[in-house]
Amino acid sequence: MGKIIIVGASGTIGRAVADLLEQDNEVIRVGHTQGDYSVDLIEKASIEKLFEGIGSFDAIICTAGMSRFGNVGEASDDDFSVSIDHKLMGQVNLVRIALRHITENGSITITTGLLAREPWTGTVPTAMVNAALEGFVRAAALDVAKGVRINAVSPVFVTETAKKMGMDTADTMSAIETARAYQASKDGDMTGQVLDVREYGKVEGGGQ
Amino acid sequence: MGKIIIVGASGTIGRAVADLLEQDNEVIRVGHTQGDYSVDLIEKASIEKLFEGIGSFDAIICTAGMSRFGNVGEASDDDFSVSIDHKLMGQVNLVRIALRHITENGSITITTGLLAREPWTGTVPTAMVNAALEGFVRAAALDVAKGVRINAVSPVFVTETAKKMGMDTADTMSAIETARAYQASKDGDMTGQVLDVREYGKVEGGGQ
Repeated sequence: MGKIIIVGASGTIGRAVADLLEQDNEVIRVGHTQGDYSVDLIEKASIEKLFEGIGSFDAIICTAGMSRFGNVGEASDDDFSVSIDHKLMGQVNLVRIALRHITENGSITITTGLLAREPWTGTVPTAMVNAALEGFVRAAALDVAKGVRINAVSPVFVTETAKKMGMDTADTMSAIETARAYQASKDGDMTGQVLDVREYGKVEGGGQ
Repeated sequence: MGKIIIVGASGTIGRAVADLLEQDNEVIRVGHTQGDYSVDLIEKASIEKLFEGIGSFDAIICTAGMSRFGNVGEASDDDFSVSIDHKLMGQVNLVRIALRHITENGSITITTGLLAREPWTGTVPTAMVNAALEGFVRAAALDVAKGVRINAVSPVFVTETAKKMGMDTADTMSAIETARAYQASKDGDMTGQVLDVREYGKVEGGGQ
């Protein structure tokens, strides 16, 4: 039982994480416009206001963060800067400020993605910021005190989203399967790690 | 024999790379203020002007790029933004623009660093941008045409710099040892790879 903040709780993955963790925890759902609280990740002041509103907490999970695709020769300056300002620095700033409010032995989990290590053609800005987030958690985990842990979950494409977009669902994982990696990050002892959802999602026999 | 651009040629590593490659190539030395040409990596217009001045070339190696150290709870907004604007996006923009001017089967090499994968306490902004650069080369290499290759070299602390700073030189490598990884990147067949200098520097018996 703990007080858990889910940032991105109105998204496909975030909702599944919130629903899963709500079985045993007090869950605070945070969205860009919906939820118990709202936050704009590209505004540091908005993040500060969020934590002032919530006060102390035991764990935070961020499943939000927008990034763009694009070929290295065709991606625009905006494709890079939006990805950096939102998915990368939005989550980095969330962690930096969360550290001022988290309880002893608290857990922080952010979201990277498969493309960090296994990119596809035309995915440069997303692959780049995902890799940055992996480097960030590895380094940040060394700096924190009071037993706080910092990890990242690396999802693959989510089945529900692939279906909506009329895409092939091979190699996808459902939102609830994906949510198990976030639960493992919150409940485990690891720190500075990147949890690949493919190693967690199927454990208890979900879907497919 | 080829026309090789070295960006950062007035730095400790860059000078060693330029000296090594000059034995068999036409080397164009580029610095922030010194050299055959100068460039300010945080200004995209300055990078565009550089390539307009040089015209086509066979390989480019960048050993420039400033980044900051800092503990996750203490690093400033500036520590993050300088590292992103200079070492990360400076090199990314150099690659994006270089691709318009490079010859068929050309080679692009940028610089990341050990902390991407093996961070120390208090190195968050540098660890983060180094990891980002690794994700960038893995993804960008999939997008390029005409046989162009894109790789990164990951140096460890350079002996000469450690000595100047009065630091322990254990686990350091000299500039000339480090330069061999850049030579391997230029001459090899690999693409989308991160070359760890520790796998290249000692091959031909260079000193400690």
